[in-house]
Amino acid sequence: MKVSILTFDGFNELDSFIALGILNRMRGEGWQVNITAPSTQITSMNGVTIEAQQQLEYANEANIVLFGSGIYTRDITQNSDVMNRLSLNPETQLIGSQCSGTYMLAKLGLLRNVPACTDLTTKPWVIEAGVEVLNQPFYAKGNVATSGGCMASQYLATWALCKKASEKAAREAIHYVAPVGEKEETVERSLKAISAYI
Amino acid sequence: MKVSILTFDGFNELDSFIALGILNRMRGEGWQVNITAPSTQITSMNGVTIEAQQQLEYANEANIVLFGSGIYTRDITQNSDVMNRLSLNPETQLIGSQCSGTYMLAKLGLLRNVPACTDLTTKPWVIEAGVEVLNQPFYAKGNVATSGGCMASQYLATWALCKKASEKAAREAIHYVAPVGEKEETVERSLKAISAYI
Repeated sequence: MKVSILTFDGFNELDSFIALGILNRMRGEGWQVNITAPSTQITSMNGVTIEAQQQLEYANEANIVLFGSGIYTRDITQNSDVMNRLSLNPETQLIGSQCSGTYMLAKLGLLRNVPACTDLTTKPWVIEAGVEVLNQPFYAKGNVATSGGCMASQYLATWALCKKASEKAAREAIHYVAPVGEKEETVERSLKAISAYI
Repeated sequence: MKVSILTFDGFNELDSFIALGILNRMRGEGWQVNITAPSTQITSMNGVTIEAQQQLEYANEANIVLFGSGIYTRDITQNSDVMNRLSLNPETQLIGSQCSGTYMLAKLGLLRNVPACTDLTTKPWVIEAGVEVLNQPFYAKGNVATSGGCMASQYLATWALCKKASEKAAREAIHYVAPVGEKEETVERSLKAISAYI
């Protein structure tokens, strides 16, 4: 299973790394989870520079593509040199977004007649792009999912695991990352958030 | 406010970046939150290479020092070239740890007669180091806190904000990162986890 976590300059660390950490629980089962970027290095909204694990085109061949979020999302969606490198297919790929990543999904035409989740800052842009925004952390229709609020990344990861592995795998992954003493309730909360969409 | 997030090769991405993302909500108030490492580059347990923002000695002058977690923690604590660079003072510094970071606190003598939280994998090592391990996500005594389970990082960050900024600042930071539609309950859960320790 190839997983691409699209990550751009100005990225929100939580939005890329929570999903990466959770989905990598499947590493032993052959899942390859890669921070995917338009350049070899990218720097986060808080100044952390990381090396891309894959270049942008990797997303086009990945089984699961998750759009992270960041402070330059609007500028990046206007950069055709970057956006034209993406050629995604919701018929064959699982596609999800976190916070401002939802704006990218909208601009790529992946949310036609589909309501979506995003963060409070991005909400007006997504509405402006013609997409209904829901006051909930997670929504999916078919192979396309959106989530809002950094910590909702765990729901996006739970959904991807349920869709491409199993509910058991999702439960085990969330159990591992959940706070000690709150593991069962955290697993149930994550499953509940996505149960209507699998 | 100088914040050092100690991060070593083999680090768990969630354990360093959740705290980093939340505490950076105070960036506008002058907080400087830095990934602090023994070398200029470090690679995570899942193969993500990042650049250190500060070298290890930065922790000695920081107001808040948080130990991240990772898969090589035991080896690192046996490396005196690394550990001797740390000279922390719980009288003047706020010191916290996440998961296997708790083992480092134990080995540095910062948990004498103090019970602690850690993850389920690290638990036997911490017990072996002579520290009582609690079945809860967070515990603090004075200026030293420990937490267990990756997502408990939000509690560690909440505690640091309450101690060094205000409960209001902590509430605002958690509100920002919380899932849309679950913001109030997430804020209350975080405050509840640390309320006995501030």
